[in-house]
Amino acid sequence: MSSNYRNFRNNVPWLILFLEAIFIVLFYFLFSDDGAFTSSISYPAFQDVNHMVIFGFGFFLTFLKRYGFSSTGFNLLIVVLGVQCSMLVEGLLVFFLQRENEDGLKRITKAVVSITAVVISTGAVLGKTNPLQFILMTVVEIIVFRMSRWINNRFLQVPDNISMMHVHLFGAYFGLAVSSRFSEPSPRSEKNASTPKSDLLSMLGTLFLWVFWPSFNSVLAVKDKSKAIYNTYFALAVSAVTAFVLSVLTTKDGKFRMTHIHSAVLAGGVTVGYAAHSIKYPWIAMILGLLASVVTILGSYCLQRCLNPALKIHDSSGVHFTFGLPGVLGALAQVILLVIKNWTNLTRLGYLVMLHVGAFCLTISVALITGFITG
Amino acid sequence: MSSNYRNFRNNVPWLILFLEAIFIVLFYFLFSDDGAFTSSISYPAFQDVNHMVIFGFGFFLTFLKRYGFSSTGFNLLIVVLGVQCSMLVEGLLVFFLQRENEDGLKRITKAVVSITAVVISTGAVLGKTNPLQFILMTVVEIIVFRMSRWINNRFLQVPDNISMMHVHLFGAYFGLAVSSRFSEPSPRSEKNASTPKSDLLSMLGTLFLWVFWPSFNSVLAVKDKSKAIYNTYFALAVSAVTAFVLSVLTTKDGKFRMTHIHSAVLAGGVTVGYAAHSIKYPWIAMILGLLASVVTILGSYCLQRCLNPALKIHDSSGVHFTFGLPGVLGALAQVILLVIKNWTNLTRLGYLVMLHVGAFCLTISVALITGFITG
Amino acid sequence: MSSNYRNFRNNVPWLILFLEAIFIVLFYFLFSDDGAFTSSISYPAFQDVNHMVIFGFGFFLTFLKRYGFSSTGFNLLIVVLGVQCSMLVEGLLVFFLQRENEDGLKRITKAVVSITAVVISTGAVLGKTNPLQFILMTVVEIIVFRMSRWINNRFLQVPDNISMMHVHLFGAYFGLAVSSRFSEPSPRSEKNASTPKSDLLSMLGTLFLWVFWPSFNSVLAVKDKSKAIYNTYFALAVSAVTAFVLSVLTTKDGKFRMTHIHSAVLAGGVTVGYAAHSIKYPWIAMILGLLASVVTILGSYCLQRCLNPALKIHDSSGVHFTFGLPGVLGALAQVILLVIKNWTNLTRLGYLVMLHVGAFCLTISVALITGFITG
Repeated sequence: MSSNYRNFRNNVPWLILFLEAIFIVLFYFLFSDDGAFTSSISYPAFQDVNHMVIFGFGFFLTFLKRYGFSSTGFNLLIVVLGVQCSMLVEGLLVFFLQRENEDGLKRITKAVVSITAVVISTGAVLGKTNPLQFILMTVVEIIVFRMSRWINNRFLQVPDNISMMHVHLFGAYFGLAVSSRFSEPSPRSEKNASTPKSDLLSMLGTLFLWVFWPSFNSVLAVKDKSKAIYNTYFALAVSAVTAFVLSVLTTKDGKFRMTHIHSAVLAGGVTVGYAAHSIKYPWIAMILGLLASVVTILGSYCLQRCLNPALKIHDSSGVHFTFGLPGVLGALAQVILLVIKNWTNLTRLGYLVMLHVGAFCLTISVALITGFITG
Repeated sequence: MSSNYRNFRNNVPWLILFLEAIFIVLFYFLFSDDGAFTSSISYPAFQDVNHMVIFGFGFFLTFLKRYGFSSTGFNLLIVVLGVQCSMLVEGLLVFFLQRENEDGLKRITKAVVSITAVVISTGAVLGKTNPLQFILMTVVEIIVFRMSRWINNRFLQVPDNISMMHVHLFGAYFGLAVSSRFSEPSPRSEKNASTPKSDLLSMLGTLFLWVFWPSFNSVLAVKDKSKAIYNTYFALAVSAVTAFVLSVLTTKDGKFRMTHIHSAVLAGGVTVGYAAHSIKYPWIAMILGLLASVVTILGSYCLQRCLNPALKIHDSSGVHFTFGLPGVLGALAQVILLVIKNWTNLTRLGYLVMLHVGAFCLTISVALITGFITG
Repeated sequence: MSSNYRNFRNNVPWLILFLEAIFIVLFYFLFSDDGAFTSSISYPAFQDVNHMVIFGFGFFLTFLKRYGFSSTGFNLLIVVLGVQCSMLVEGLLVFFLQRENEDGLKRITKAVVSITAVVISTGAVLGKTNPLQFILMTVVEIIVFRMSRWINNRFLQVPDNISMMHVHLFGAYFGLAVSSRFSEPSPRSEKNASTPKSDLLSMLGTLFLWVFWPSFNSVLAVKDKSKAIYNTYFALAVSAVTAFVLSVLTTKDGKFRMTHIHSAVLAGGVTVGYAAHSIKYPWIAMILGLLASVVTILGSYCLQRCLNPALKIHDSSGVHFTFGLPGVLGALAQVILLVIKNWTNLTRLGYLVMLHVGAFCLTISVALITGFITG
């Protein structure tokens, strides 16, 4: 412990400073314009996403007693490092592939959305890694996620804003794969305890995420932004209702259980992410929200009983059922909606389904494999 | 207690699920468009109102010790149920009366503004009802409020955005009427205690409400939005100053008292709501803010001493003097401003005054009568 | 203590009421239009700045144990008084100098930005003054700051949005000068203690400030708003990273120290304020952010060791190194960037540099002198 600790003290600050120096040098070479052309992203929408990442995820992860202040602060550190890293990877791609340049605000927004993957992964390994490992994980995950999106974009013609929505799936499975490489802490340890106060903070985080989710799902949509907002709102609303109901039904004493509400309230937003801008009627979004919530709570039940002990996964914040399963459901729903829409044209349908399923499998497998290696 | 409790455990979740199922089915029939035409409501303004309802009222009601977490969570549940219910009632009206359809964002915004009535009523009965009663109250209140607005709109030609501002009045008196049907809990009971921590959270809620009130008053205004913002800001500012001053003057030890500040800080916003877009000079708004604050603090004094024991009303969060009295003042002020503006044309003046007074009386009596029945 | 206290009880409320009455009367004479012309300030941007002042500074100053609730409430009181006062001073200037009138929203926004100076000064004297002194300080500081800006504007041709950015410098040095006139409280006294809970609230305030800083730096910029946002974001990001690194390196046990992180995280935003809209490449903003953070942490080190005991300054919240030093650095950076940009034209360069240095010296000396007198 002691040598480990000295190790941390000696290495981490220098590593971060070194990273930061590289970032500044690369920014010097890569971003030689001032990024001030008119943007397709409105500033308030960007601010919403920014708040969501800083406040929402910052507090969402404070529910473990020991990580009250430090997780909020650490979350900020990881977000700012990750955003810079993500912008650099994007800048390198623009440089090497001669793609057209984007305006400054859009660049930052995309970087902030990407960083969500890292923050979700962080949830899975919280309490098991030291800061050094966190920072390495951040850099690796950002690079790998960009590569996965690039492959999706290049070979499977998935548009940019859809491939961005794989962020939850990628984050959850990357985090789980990394997590499975660490030994499980003893379940009675103080590190896993939660207090009423930390529960309240965590609820605050959930509310922040709930409120800003429509902005998150609509900010990168090229058109039909208002449709995306409308559908996401309904999915979230039904999802919240279902979360409360199921939480009462599945616990023996008939009380709300915090962990259920945390995860299930947001499930609708995750699920509807892929298809938010293409769903035509609000009732479809509402049913998706309902299903997402059910899947999440059943998932949390089954996974903690059966799967996790079998696979020796210890998932501190339940990212698997909070972001992983609703993400899978969302990808499935997207394919089904596509089938319904295009069922007259079978050739095109087969092609489209193949593309989507391909993108989905690719994202998960890249996440799992690289997660293992990183672990 | 035990059978009551089992009752709650058995009924509530199924009731909510049943409601939600009805909602989805009705949404299927009523909303067959995608609601994506260009909106007169800007997305950031909608977000402000949404935050205000979720965070502001959520924390505003946490000041009772026992209701820390659950009131924040429960508030979310009531808001999402109420918003869906409100949209359905609106949809049914559109369907039966063949009125023109509105875009999705405006529909949600109006539903969120309407839900404020329910949240205010909730404040009056907090600690006296069980969840089952809360949910029934939500559904009934939303329907009755829409009816009251429809009557105002149809027979008294009150424009939509003004009739919407009756939301505070309606919420407060509906809540009081419901509350008067419940027995008063013993004043020494733990349920009414507040702690420094819950006071801080409640202050946070007040700040949220204070900051977002200009958005609330301006979001539905058809024109002169910026005038509404400008006037509301000044009314709130003067109201805050007066609240601090009066709180020091009326307490014996010369210290701020939380309950005064809570209620009086917001009084200006409530009062100026009706006339915000038509007040010409900021000093009128400032005087209204001053009067509102005075009325609220004197009201809290008199009501708790004389009126409440006489009428056997127990008003847990003081909604009567926080939202009720400033609402009455606001309606009065609106009539007076009207008189000053139109005093040359007496026929028209009489007609207008009659309309406004009629709308005001109608709203309060509908609120009181239906509140009694619901209780 | 007792007579002092009675003094407070008797005078403060009447003083505030008297001020408020004067404000309303002056508003009656000065603002005879409704301020509803189209504004160059967007409403969401104004809301961001408003949130920043109410929440950000409100919580930022709660880190002393005794000032939990009251500092949040008191902050609101000072902000609303100051905003009205600032608008009046502006209105008097418009009236006497026959300058063109601005729209309502812009007036409020400028007043809210000006009030930042007062809130910063408040940080320096927190725990040493009574409410009466606070309120007098607010009124005097607002008037003096407007005078200083007017001189800058009139004789040194500094544009309005740049002279507004002197707000941090002015606030910090005014506060320090006032603070130096009060005796230092005993360092062991309970008034200076902080608790984990108040630290968390203070961290929340820092996050609010961090998130809204790009809006603060861009809201008054006439053009190149998006460039200002872009540069401020990067300066803040690098500044946050550096703050965490330096905090670990400078403490003996290798842990984050709250006070360092508080102040250094925001340093980048303060520094880049002057030049945010004119910096061409993000890497310049990043280096400024890095330097600002270094200056702040070194400053906090040196000042607390050497300078403060020598000059007998007691700076409760560390406003000197949080806002003062980064402000000086920012003014310096602005001059250097100017030199680099105009080095071919030496006459014009000398003239410009003289103007900027003049404005800078003027602001600081006015702040110090009037601060002393006020003290």
